[in-house]
Amino acid sequence: MPKKLLIDCDPGIDDALALAFAHGRSELDVVAVTTVGGNVPLEHTTANALDLAEYYGMDVPVSRGAGRPLARSPHTAPEIHGARGLGDIALPGAGTCLTGRHAVDTIIDTVAAAPGEISLVAIGPLTNVALALHKEPRLTEWVREFVLMGGAYGGAGPSAGSTSSGNTTTMAEFNVYADPEAAAVVFGAGWTPVMVGLDLTRQARATGSVRERFTDLGRLEREVLTPGLDFYGRSVQYRTQEGPPIHDACAVAYVLDPSLIDTVPARVDVETRGEFTTGMTVTNFGAQPETHNALVAIDLHAEPFWDRVTEAYRTLATTLR
Amino acid sequence: MPKKLLIDCDPGIDDALALAFAHGRSELDVVAVTTVGGNVPLEHTTANALDLAEYYGMDVPVSRGAGRPLARSPHTAPEIHGARGLGDIALPGAGTCLTGRHAVDTIIDTVAAAPGEISLVAIGPLTNVALALHKEPRLTEWVREFVLMGGAYGGAGPSAGSTSSGNTTTMAEFNVYADPEAAAVVFGAGWTPVMVGLDLTRQARATGSVRERFTDLGRLEREVLTPGLDFYGRSVQYRTQEGPPIHDACAVAYVLDPSLIDTVPARVDVETRGEFTTGMTVTNFGAQPETHNALVAIDLHAEPFWDRVTEAYRTLATTLR
Amino acid sequence: MPKKLLIDCDPGIDDALALAFAHGRSELDVVAVTTVGGNVPLEHTTANALDLAEYYGMDVPVSRGAGRPLARSPHTAPEIHGARGLGDIALPGAGTCLTGRHAVDTIIDTVAAAPGEISLVAIGPLTNVALALHKEPRLTEWVREFVLMGGAYGGAGPSAGSTSSGNTTTMAEFNVYADPEAAAVVFGAGWTPVMVGLDLTRQARATGSVRERFTDLGRLEREVLTPGLDFYGRSVQYRTQEGPPIHDACAVAYVLDPSLIDTVPARVDVETRGEFTTGMTVTNFGAQPETHNALVAIDLHAEPFWDRVTEAYRTLATTLR
Amino acid sequence: MPKKLLIDCDPGIDDALALAFAHGRSELDVVAVTTVGGNVPLEHTTANALDLAEYYGMDVPVSRGAGRPLARSPHTAPEIHGARGLGDIALPGAGTCLTGRHAVDTIIDTVAAAPGEISLVAIGPLTNVALALHKEPRLTEWVREFVLMGGAYGGAGPSAGSTSSGNTTTMAEFNVYADPEAAAVVFGAGWTPVMVGLDLTRQARATGSVRERFTDLGRLEREVLTPGLDFYGRSVQYRTQEGPPIHDACAVAYVLDPSLIDTVPARVDVETRGEFTTGMTVTNFGAQPETHNALVAIDLHAEPFWDRVTEAYRTLATTLR
Repeated sequence: MPKKLLIDCDPGIDDALALAFAHGRSELDVVAVTTVGGNVPLEHTTANALDLAEYYGMDVPVSRGAGRPLARSPHTAPEIHGARGLGDIALPGAGTCLTGRHAVDTIIDTVAAAPGEISLVAIGPLTNVALALHKEPRLTEWVREFVLMGGAYGGAGPSAGSTSSGNTTTMAEFNVYADPEAAAVVFGAGWTPVMVGLDLTRQARATGSVRERFTDLGRLEREVLTPGLDFYGRSVQYRTQEGPPIHDACAVAYVLDPSLIDTVPARVDVETRGEFTTGMTVTNFGAQPETHNALVAIDLHAEPFWDRVTEAYRTLATTLR
Repeated sequence: MPKKLLIDCDPGIDDALALAFAHGRSELDVVAVTTVGGNVPLEHTTANALDLAEYYGMDVPVSRGAGRPLARSPHTAPEIHGARGLGDIALPGAGTCLTGRHAVDTIIDTVAAAPGEISLVAIGPLTNVALALHKEPRLTEWVREFVLMGGAYGGAGPSAGSTSSGNTTTMAEFNVYADPEAAAVVFGAGWTPVMVGLDLTRQARATGSVRERFTDLGRLEREVLTPGLDFYGRSVQYRTQEGPPIHDACAVAYVLDPSLIDTVPARVDVETRGEFTTGMTVTNFGAQPETHNALVAIDLHAEPFWDRVTEAYRTLATTLR
Repeated sequence: MPKKLLIDCDPGIDDALALAFAHGRSELDVVAVTTVGGNVPLEHTTANALDLAEYYGMDVPVSRGAGRPLARSPHTAPEIHGARGLGDIALPGAGTCLTGRHAVDTIIDTVAAAPGEISLVAIGPLTNVALALHKEPRLTEWVREFVLMGGAYGGAGPSAGSTSSGNTTTMAEFNVYADPEAAAVVFGAGWTPVMVGLDLTRQARATGSVRERFTDLGRLEREVLTPGLDFYGRSVQYRTQEGPPIHDACAVAYVLDPSLIDTVPARVDVETRGEFTTGMTVTNFGAQPETHNALVAIDLHAEPFWDRVTEAYRTLATTLR
Repeated sequence: MPKKLLIDCDPGIDDALALAFAHGRSELDVVAVTTVGGNVPLEHTTANALDLAEYYGMDVPVSRGAGRPLARSPHTAPEIHGARGLGDIALPGAGTCLTGRHAVDTIIDTVAAAPGEISLVAIGPLTNVALALHKEPRLTEWVREFVLMGGAYGGAGPSAGSTSSGNTTTMAEFNVYADPEAAAVVFGAGWTPVMVGLDLTRQARATGSVRERFTDLGRLEREVLTPGLDFYGRSVQYRTQEGPPIHDACAVAYVLDPSLIDTVPARVDVETRGEFTTGMTVTNFGAQPETHNALVAIDLHAEPFWDRVTEAYRTLATTLR
């Protein structure tokens, strides 16, 4: 029986790639998609989620969520994802509609309806998840697992692959920076989030040799992968010569097969008050074990990861022909 | 002609080792020592500086400085250095006296008297240096160079030598944590501090094989190195099996021979307002060059470093026989 | 036709008095009660709301809301309201039950069902209201008005009736201090909250002469007013000789008859980051009119106010006999 | 024997008026003037202090102090005092020179030389005083008294004389806002500052009837009082119809005769981290007496105050003819 996922997202180019990855794997069943303001404003992330679900042929309810962070003004990243969020990806508009339910209720109701069965995967700012925890604290007991793409533990340096730990400020990753108070609620809720942060996702770069594996994928390649990765690569290329990191797909990979990603338990606190560090996930691997509150992703097994991604895209591509 | 150093310190066991290192090298001339509250309160760091200078046979004026941080309550580390600051090192009390001048004036006057000649080396909290900059901003033009032991740029992780970036909090190093506002003044003063932080100093560990090189150093070994390093090693041993890092000596090493330490220019901002990150030196190696404000020490050439230290101790030991 | 109120509360002794006031006025129709953690934890405020509604004979749905502030740990005031929230008031347990709906949904659905008709009155921390605004931003357009008991604009001083502006810290009032991020969301939502703060409510003191007017109110007097006001008065009596201020009833009074309370438009910002000022409602009466975001209650017409309260209690008392 | 004052100032129009007041009273002896960056940059405040001292015929050493706040960037008020600090007052340039000493040393040495005799009066940002305390903590024991013009305890409101508590932000007075960390050091130093804040100084308005008393003061009136007060009044006139408050002179008045100003002991904490409240002097008149750390000026006896000011100006005017 496939594992059930609820994906909370803010598409976003790499969200689009992550949704394709999840939908293309028969071991995974995306039971609901919820949207949040993030990479671009909520109206666009929601339209994109609907369009992507229809384009990919996903039979999944899509629910709109929060358009504003818990306690701040919105912060978006149109320079990375384009003004409407999908760069040069041009999809036909969806004919399907949103559910009438708010994302927060979709999250709560979906998880509550199948305790222990749902993997909650958040690949945007954590506003919806925090609101859901405020409304239903037992969510932490009812999920099968909670995996987020977000944060960074700081292994940057001149000899590392990146010259700064964060991608939005020196120390902060976008999803956490965009709603640090929500992230603080999420990390403090008493469960054990699996933090798939930049330290991990920067190991998942769509290099030239990765891109070559996508060349015979027909419409998926022409209409999504190429325009998406080209746009995305251009916008982040000043940071690397190695191809852009496909952040969000890594969180899906962990749900698909935890052995693809090595994790280490740690204490993670989210900074919300710093002048230079707001949005940083302060991570202490040496903390006393009783204070640990997260599993932090450290190493990606890149070969099998890209194998799984490529297989998924191939499967999905077949259905699009 | 030897290079002239002014050492601002808070002895402290590793300060004691750094003073011995500087005094034992004929290429260096310690022209003044100033004290600051830090590892232990000012009364002890000052007494220790006097005692060490006399014991080592340094003919150097010692001036007392600030006992309290610029804008906080004092934070000390007696668990590392002992209640009086020198662990199990027992020195005869000094017969010499303090200069009548305040450390701040000693710093300003010494540097002003020989523009371009003095290497200012700070191996304690940066209170005195910040106060000196407030009183005489032209200090930045008059020093030959400014080298500090302090900070950390964050290259920690489960696979690194340390499980957290800082040594006082998860992200903060002691000297910066103890007076973050002073550190912010110092990094913002318009000069180019050489930041010798934990990322560097953790490469300078007094391992067993290093210790073996000290075994025939007579009184220096029996009365300072062994009781100092044994105490220091015990107190920090929970962090490593590799011997304690001799932080402060690394700053002296840079003045002695910059080729011992590789540095990279970067932007360093000191966090003073974070809930979890106060005292962190937020370092961006990828910042625009025109925003760079520091040279950050990255790699220690450990072999020649320990050669230089051992030679210095051998020279000093001869004079103590 | 009576005005419809939804009361979001954290009973609390003065909440008990406010509910009695609202229920005793034929001009008012309490259409729903929602609970929030505040004076005491959520389990107690909710039980108290159920018990009070049944005791008073209110035919009203009660919905449980948030137990934790938006971005902080809970802060309660058992020293003022007793461990269970109603001091020495002992009510028979309620036979009625909660609605199945969460307070946030009760607020949204109730207001949405009758646009322009519902006066939303918050007399506890603003967590539920902030969560409702996050879920349904159009709430601001749909309410008839929003009145909160909370905040203080700072008119304290040695010659004023109070020696500090706040009642929880020097500058902060309890309801705002207990969830400052929620208050910031509420004041920033684009509507015009009527802020009934301590400057106003300290004019509504249950003095001896006020208490005399309650002496012939039978069970209401014996079972609620006397044990409530005696307990409440003892707990706050160090602050005044004048009888305790009946904060929450003032917010109800504004809905009943705005002419009971003079208001002035102002700019109100909620401090969430101060070391000494977190939870303060920073109020600028001299701000440019286009930046005004609240109506701030300034002066209470105490005589007619107490007349209305006493009449309400008399009406209610009759039904309890 | 006259009382000895050291005045630390940032002239500034009202500083000019305060210096004239102090110099015109035979009961007062201004033994030193020190300058600090504040109303305008340090170069201008220092030139103005020299020019004013010479113009008034004060035989007093002037020492330059700090040009930058303890831990922030400078904040000035040219819109109130003009770009060079004295509005339309045009003085002949001074022929006299600065002392060679830094203001911090002038403060320390002057007070140390006559323990118990010197009234230290600060009418600008508190940078110099904080630096002096850092260098010589015993200053607190050696001064006769320390009086500052700065802060506000918040007695504003729609019915008060002012619509906001502060004059720089809603809650903050200029001198404290300009260097809040310095103010925090000063209030926390263990002495008992006399805080002459806006609540007091707004009672010292140069109204029309006050101005009439200055009409026959010759050059002083033509060259200082009229151009100064006219400029000053225009720049602050949006705040009041009542004439501008002559802040700094009030601090001098307290030294001249404490019975001119009623004070109340209180706890004062300086906010340094708020989003909306940085620079606020958080004042609790109801704090436990053992926590009191300041005497807060409450009420000005305006009639005798203006009598003393006018007499001083008359005396001074005589010498200028």
